[in-house]
Amino acid sequence: MLDICLLGTGGMLPLPYRALTSLMVRCNGHSVLIDCGEGTQNQIRLIGWSFKDIDLICFTHFHADHISGLPGLLLTIGNAERTEPLTMMGPKGLAKVVNSLRIIAPGLPFDIRFIEFDEEEPSYEFFGLKVDAYKVSHSVPCFGYRLSLPRAGKFDVERAKALGLPVQMWNKLQHGETVEFEGASYTPDMVMGEDRKGLSVAYCTDTRPCPVIEKYAKDADLFICEGMYGEDDKLDKVKEHRHMLMQEACRIAQKAKPAKLWLTHYSPATPKPIVFQDALREIFPETYICKDRTMMELKFSDEE
Amino acid sequence: MLDICLLGTGGMLPLPYRALTSLMVRCNGHSVLIDCGEGTQNQIRLIGWSFKDIDLICFTHFHADHISGLPGLLLTIGNAERTEPLTMMGPKGLAKVVNSLRIIAPGLPFDIRFIEFDEEEPSYEFFGLKVDAYKVSHSVPCFGYRLSLPRAGKFDVERAKALGLPVQMWNKLQHGETVEFEGASYTPDMVMGEDRKGLSVAYCTDTRPCPVIEKYAKDADLFICEGMYGEDDKLDKVKEHRHMLMQEACRIAQKAKPAKLWLTHYSPATPKPIVFQDALREIFPETYICKDRTMMELKFSDEE
Repeated sequence: MLDICLLGTGGMLPLPYRALTSLMVRCNGHSVLIDCGEGTQNQIRLIGWSFKDIDLICFTHFHADHISGLPGLLLTIGNAERTEPLTMMGPKGLAKVVNSLRIIAPGLPFDIRFIEFDEEEPSYEFFGLKVDAYKVSHSVPCFGYRLSLPRAGKFDVERAKALGLPVQMWNKLQHGETVEFEGASYTPDMVMGEDRKGLSVAYCTDTRPCPVIEKYAKDADLFICEGMYGEDDKLDKVKEHRHMLMQEACRIAQKAKPAKLWLTHYSPATPKPIVFQDALREIFPETYICKDRTMMELKFSDEE
Repeated sequence: MLDICLLGTGGMLPLPYRALTSLMVRCNGHSVLIDCGEGTQNQIRLIGWSFKDIDLICFTHFHADHISGLPGLLLTIGNAERTEPLTMMGPKGLAKVVNSLRIIAPGLPFDIRFIEFDEEEPSYEFFGLKVDAYKVSHSVPCFGYRLSLPRAGKFDVERAKALGLPVQMWNKLQHGETVEFEGASYTPDMVMGEDRKGLSVAYCTDTRPCPVIEKYAKDADLFICEGMYGEDDKLDKVKEHRHMLMQEACRIAQKAKPAKLWLTHYSPATPKPIVFQDALREIFPETYICKDRTMMELKFSDEE
């Protein structure tokens, strides 16, 4: 299962009723944060999720609205008595930016490990979660992310029995281990069915539309994308600042076919983005204008 | 008149219903901010005061809860199209800390002028407001502030008439200028009464009690002081971390005799500070447990 919460939905400047864009995902007892603008820690406190379990923070880029909440969050994570290392990933320069901000958060009870991207589409794995980053097209180097939780095939009891393997060995094979029995080796693929459909969420802000976004949003269970404005006549403005309109995000979704599209990162000049929802659903029916702390549980197809 | 708003009342960590300690004072069309923790800009937006008019930001010290909101605030002030220089003052190291935080707020349409204290009790004047800083006793160099708006004496019409000065010259004398008339010089003191009582607000956090606090809170119209906890058994804790109890702040007020005492900078472990108010008023009757955005207009005694 992936527990997903869009902590904040604002772009550029925070508003009292709209925090800056940040996403939190819980998976297998671990948490991932993507972006961390001012006020992110208050949003986490409001939903009651654990600060201590934040193992990974991914940054799209280093504009203040995506990272200004970091020093305070780090102190709060420290206050929650985390001692395990925390990993941060993002464009080149990440360590320099974070260490510069840490002038006001110097003493932490945990280490920070930095991953700076030197490829355009790097891929990682943490606690069973696949983390793909992909370079998008903003005014500064900026990356989107796709988090994917794969799912193994079903254990085939009949095949295990046919091989004559004792029941005590089944669990190891189910968890990917090779076992030895009566002088022969048995590998998981001998008793496991084909991989089943996993879960995935794609996240992308700030950027102009570009083909790589569609590639990583492809068939995702959830695609979260920026939509600064809903008015067609703001196109020149978003082109100039390398952002996108809500309708452009919907057109990407139309091609990538995720199960749902969540819009976020609204301009402070867009106080009521909900007014655009009906029109946007004509482009992509499963479009949702999100509010702060919009949540969703993504479950495997037959999961309770 | 001084327009005073205690923007936030939290210490250490922000809570969703309690922003970090920050004070805003409006005077003669200018604004002064003392401290700027994460979320300060949202508090200013909630009360609707101008970002553009913030001419001076005073820092007590550089712990994150007193400065983490600065990069976001600077961008928002820039977004409000301020172009006039902005002055910041605080302990030594101010420019280094602010410039380090500005890695995420590099391009601003206004200059920043830094004043770093090299005395224990420096004094300044801005737009008619006297700004006194005084070194207190925290775990790092930390200063309290007193803002004072002086008030000239009344213009003595009878004396001006007796001197034979034409009415056209009265205004200049009232505003502190010397005038020449029929070969003689006339100075303001020749037509002005004694200075009348001005207005003053003293602010002090984070510190152990020390005599200099009493000196600057003396007879103030308003004394704003930290009170981390209200329980006597937290004394060892506040001594260790160089903070103070609410009752210690009241005892300072008992000696300094300000018109009112506002308490602030509550620990996150003090969710309902109001429960201590009655007991504190036995020490100093004019004690107020403040909430975020507690406001007050300080007016001259006969001002409408």
